[in-house]
Amino acid sequence: MKQLIVDLDDRSYPIYIGEGILDQISTFFRKHQINDQSPLMIITDDNIAPLYLKKVIVSLQESGYKVCEYIVPAGESSKSLSVLEKITGVALDAGLDRKSSIVALGGGVVGDLAGFVAASFMRGIPFIQIPTTILAHDSSVGGKVAVNHPKAKNIIGAFHQPQMVLYDTSTLRTLPEREIKAGLSELIKHGLIWDAKFAEWNQLNAEKLLALDSESLEYALYNGCKIKAHVVSEDERENGLRAILNFGHTIGHALEAVSQYNKLLHGEAIAIGMVGAAKLSVHLGYPQRIYKETKSVMKKYGLPIQIPNHLNVDEIMEAMLHDKKFSEGQVVFTILKDIGEAHIQRGISIDLIREIVENLRLEE
Amino acid sequence: MKQLIVDLDDRSYPIYIGEGILDQISTFFRKHQINDQSPLMIITDDNIAPLYLKKVIVSLQESGYKVCEYIVPAGESSKSLSVLEKITGVALDAGLDRKSSIVALGGGVVGDLAGFVAASFMRGIPFIQIPTTILAHDSSVGGKVAVNHPKAKNIIGAFHQPQMVLYDTSTLRTLPEREIKAGLSELIKHGLIWDAKFAEWNQLNAEKLLALDSESLEYALYNGCKIKAHVVSEDERENGLRAILNFGHTIGHALEAVSQYNKLLHGEAIAIGMVGAAKLSVHLGYPQRIYKETKSVMKKYGLPIQIPNHLNVDEIMEAMLHDKKFSEGQVVFTILKDIGEAHIQRGISIDLIREIVENLRLEE
Ligand SMILES: NC(=O)c1ccc[n+]([C@@H]2O[C@H](COP(=O)([O-])OP(=O)(O)OC[C@H]3O[C@@H](n4cnc5c(N)ncnc54)[C@H](O)[C@@H]3O)[C@@H](O)[C@H]2O)c1
Ligand SMILES: NC(=O)c1ccc[n+]([C@@H]2O[C@H](COP(=O)([O-])OP(=O)(O)OC[C@H]3O[C@@H](n4cnc5c(N)ncnc54)[C@H](O)[C@@H]3O)[C@@H](O)[C@H]2O)c1
Ligand SMILES: [Zn+2]
Ligand SMILES: [Zn+2]
Repeated sequence: MKQLIVDLDDRSYPIYIGEGILDQISTFFRKHQINDQSPLMIITDDNIAPLYLKKVIVSLQESGYKVCEYIVPAGESSKSLSVLEKITGVALDAGLDRKSSIVALGGGVVGDLAGFVAASFMRGIPFIQIPTTILAHDSSVGGKVAVNHPKAKNIIGAFHQPQMVLYDTSTLRTLPEREIKAGLSELIKHGLIWDAKFAEWNQLNAEKLLALDSESLEYALYNGCKIKAHVVSEDERENGLRAILNFGHTIGHALEAVSQYNKLLHGEAIAIGMVGAAKLSVHLGYPQRIYKETKSVMKKYGLPIQIPNHLNVDEIMEAMLHDKKFSEGQVVFTILKDIGEAHIQRGISIDLIREIVENLRLEE
Repeated sequence: MKQLIVDLDDRSYPIYIGEGILDQISTFFRKHQINDQSPLMIITDDNIAPLYLKKVIVSLQESGYKVCEYIVPAGESSKSLSVLEKITGVALDAGLDRKSSIVALGGGVVGDLAGFVAASFMRGIPFIQIPTTILAHDSSVGGKVAVNHPKAKNIIGAFHQPQMVLYDTSTLRTLPEREIKAGLSELIKHGLIWDAKFAEWNQLNAEKLLALDSESLEYALYNGCKIKAHVVSEDERENGLRAILNFGHTIGHALEAVSQYNKLLHGEAIAIGMVGAAKLSVHLGYPQRIYKETKSVMKKYGLPIQIPNHLNVDEIMEAMLHDKKFSEGQVVFTILKDIGEAHIQRGISIDLIREIVENLRLEE
């Protein structure tokens, strides 16, 4: 088992990563003095509940915790205010109070939703992340929690750091293959923006990671979390450095938006987005290898690198220009100066971006 | 004009109190460098809009601000997630971004709602309070913002401090008389819990305050805000001292709940609650004058001191025991050790509270 600390003054918290953590959930709760006088609420989704919920509940109950649960339908549409309102009602009925904790058992959807429930219930109660997807190595670190508005993703939310993250790699074995690949996309991103050595390791270990080899997973998730944690520590409220985490996301979000959040997975969309941003880096004069290696690593992991033909370029551009990241109308893009070295580039022309997007339809 | 600072490290902010501030809104915005590149949104209600909205909009527009507005129906029921979702949609359409500010023009309802919109929109943007009720001297200081859940008041919210509070006492002249009295109830509370001199001043100046004499209002609101600000500075997140602000609120909230939020105003309910808490103080051995003076000041301001006969004691007790303040099942009560000196008393027996409540029905 590996452990690291997200360093945020009095909001610092540990991440534990390893096989079999789910069997010892209550040990971690006790170790970190999670209150056992007030009831806890576990929030999860209906794919994860039949697999892991019972194990978590039994472990906690045997240790003397009072536990209630809320199971949402799997999928992005559960990240809504109306689901939050229902959960809040059940929490009130179950007697949760200001000393209760919310436990998120699941992927990024459950983590973001449960995190915002915890942030807003009685103006903020503790919460604990138990991630069950690879992508959640990203979403469970950094304290960004949110629900969606019909008009925009993640637009209603908060910064709310968890008490701890308990990451059991054995839960990843039940993930659908497509979700595994999409999650690895975000892991690859962390190497590309910050750590050339880890980026190279990712190039060399695609097979092992895709096979969910336990030791490789632990190593890779540890590094991914560490990079994310480091960036977040330096910039908790997203005023500067944190923007490098958006590598691949400007184009990626637009692709998600125009494919109406159901055709491309987030990790797939940003894989294409990273290839685009890498190409933009080269356009701006940075080394050719940025583009070559970004593209090759995506291929090794079976991730898409081409914008699907049925998506319309005008609509993609339109979606991009509505993105909240274009603060005050400035076009800002996260690019790479080299593998392992991200950079925030301002004042990029819309025409150049359009050219990149058009090229991405021909990529292969 | 009077000015004071709420001292909260990097979240400190000024409160300006005086006649005619509304005519110079944009001056204050400029002075405090409110961003003029991104659009602002003013949130208000349909009683206040016809009286003051235009003045505020014109002042801001003439100074070069881009302004949009959202008018909610007056009343507690606008403090809901569904209204928040609608406002968020309009904010997105109007192009608000992370540098935009939300402006709350109104009483506590508008302030709490707009504050939570600001806290949650894009995970938090600046907001500015322009209070227009007397009660808002309380609600606009301290950063507690929230909406209601059908099952509980103020249960979904955040701590989000404003950039500044611009309090124009001339707006109070259009307040219905009942709202004036109810607002003064909270002002009286601030004297009773913290400042014997101010408490005495309130005893002596009921007539002037009820007539909204400009100088008296400025003095009283300044003192009320100062006491609230002081308590909040010492305990931003309500871990300790802040509980003294609940004087009169334990019984008061229960009365509001059983009268279904529409028969008794908040200020009226806590006036009765303060008389009850003062009586409890005497029961616990503190000076008789606590009860005498609390009761007499309420009478001078025309505030109720008796629980209306049609309210059922069992239901009141039930509502009180469901209050979120009874953390972990402990019965905690804010009482007075003397006029101007509040105290948090733990471990009070439910039977004693019931006796107090029963007596409050006979009060006159
Ligand atoms: N907060 C952040 O910083 C941040 C960062 C990135 C992404 N996100 C958010 O994360 C979300 C995407 O996260 P995700 O990819 O984990 O999606 P997800 O939570 O929807 O999980 C993907 C699918 O896998 C299923 N699943 C989860 N764990 C499983 C397991 N162990 N076995 C079998 N099935 C399992 C889920 O039920 C779901 O159907 C998006 O809403 C995105 O906005 C947030
Ligand atoms: N955040 C806090 O710390 C805090 C503290 C106390 C109360 N509150 C909240 O404040 C709310 C009550 O505030 P309130 O008493 O100001 O209620 P309110 O905002 O509903 O205002 C009372 C009534 O007066 C009208 N009104 C407001 N200003 C007016 C004016 N200048 N002229 C004419 N009419 C005017 C309103 O339209 C409304 O009908 C409650 O929701 C309560 O939960 C919050
Ligand atoms: Zn992402
Ligand atoms: Zn009050």
